[in-house]
Amino acid sequence: MRYDVTVPLRPGIPAYPGEAGPVLELLKARRRGDAADVGRLLLSLHTGTHVDAPTHFLDGGGGVETLPLDALVGPCLVLDVEAAPDVSAAALEARLGGAVPDRLLLRTRNSTGAPPLWAKESFDPGFAAIGHDAARWLADRRVRLVGIDYLSVEPFGAAEPLTHLALLGAGVVVVEGLDLRAVPPGLYQLTCLPALLPGADGAPARVLLETRAS
Amino acid sequence: MRYDVTVPLRPGIPAYPGEAGPVLELLKARRRGDAADVGRLLLSLHTGTHVDAPTHFLDGGGGVETLPLDALVGPCLVLDVEAAPDVSAAALEARLGGAVPDRLLLRTRNSTGAPPLWAKESFDPGFAAIGHDAARWLADRRVRLVGIDYLSVEPFGAAEPLTHLALLGAGVVVVEGLDLRAVPPGLYQLTCLPALLPGADGAPARVLLETRAS
Repeated sequence: MRYDVTVPLRPGIPAYPGEAGPVLELLKARRRGDAADVGRLLLSLHTGTHVDAPTHFLDGGGGVETLPLDALVGPCLVLDVEAAPDVSAAALEARLGGAVPDRLLLRTRNSTGAPPLWAKESFDPGFAAIGHDAARWLADRRVRLVGIDYLSVEPFGAAEPLTHLALLGAGVVVVEGLDLRAVPPGLYQLTCLPALLPGADGAPARVLLETRAS
Repeated sequence: MRYDVTVPLRPGIPAYPGEAGPVLELLKARRRGDAADVGRLLLSLHTGTHVDAPTHFLDGGGGVETLPLDALVGPCLVLDVEAAPDVSAAALEARLGGAVPDRLLLRTRNSTGAPPLWAKESFDPGFAAIGHDAARWLADRRVRLVGIDYLSVEPFGAAEPLTHLALLGAGVVVVEGLDLRAVPPGLYQLTCLPALLPGADGAPARVLLETRAS
């Protein structure tokens, strides 16, 4: 069984404040007499399902091309976890204890609430994020990749971006904007492939989860 | 062994005439006092490594979201094949005979010439493409995905886009702009994940080849 957990990059999708939705326009169009339709995309890099690169928050941090494929591809745990309002270290400790996976996607009230946030037409600032203590907990345990089911790992309105700094500073790959509504918690094979944009602070990613053979 | 056969989307990479190279600009920048770097991308959809969607050439054809994941992911043959000047049906018949794979990446003089075309700084119109007879040969044999190692499957300057029409018209997924220079011919597991751009005539894709266990 294969799940595509990518949010389609449609104009008008919920976007973080300051980001505009994606814009597609036709440079050439058959209806205008051209031989082919040839489109052009204008995209804020933190829209929809995307990765963050270290340079998003770290001086001298690498761009998207530095995210290692062996972190982006491999076994992955999708975990249903309490977020009140955000995911805490205590909640992770209660659910995972000493068995921390290399790759972890957090399925929160963003996905399981009524309605789930991706069902809304506009951005909801009340989303569940990863609390600063939880980010440090994950970084200390050398998780390689962490994903969240809405537009940021950072608690909205945080005075300092301590979640991003803890994760990116520890070399953890951050995946934001996943659509985990339809995915039962459990173990999967993750394939998270961002567009190859050297130097960029983020990139749209296509993300698949496949149930594992055993 | 894993090969990333994606061309990095750098400004100034060779692009098809009429396409501009990708442009990355910072909407927010730490060096300007913002909390984070937040970039925006302007990208022609047929730049670098990308897929074509049926609507690129077919009236009423589907966008990138209609390309099936079970064509984009799976076993794949990388074939060294003569192109004089383009890949012909006879060349494919000579190399493959009746054993036609579901997914086929053509490694031509674009990759093996001196210099290979991706080593050049600007677009080279003398690239090897898929001849019209070869496209019909592939479509007739119900290949699911075909990839080429430069910017178009279509012979440059073709009076009619018969290669695209044959492949897209038969539901074959077309992948262009692969960098196959470092990949020995043989069998691989292909993972070709395009950005999820509903309605778009093409999309940048990140493409991996992995050697298979047996």
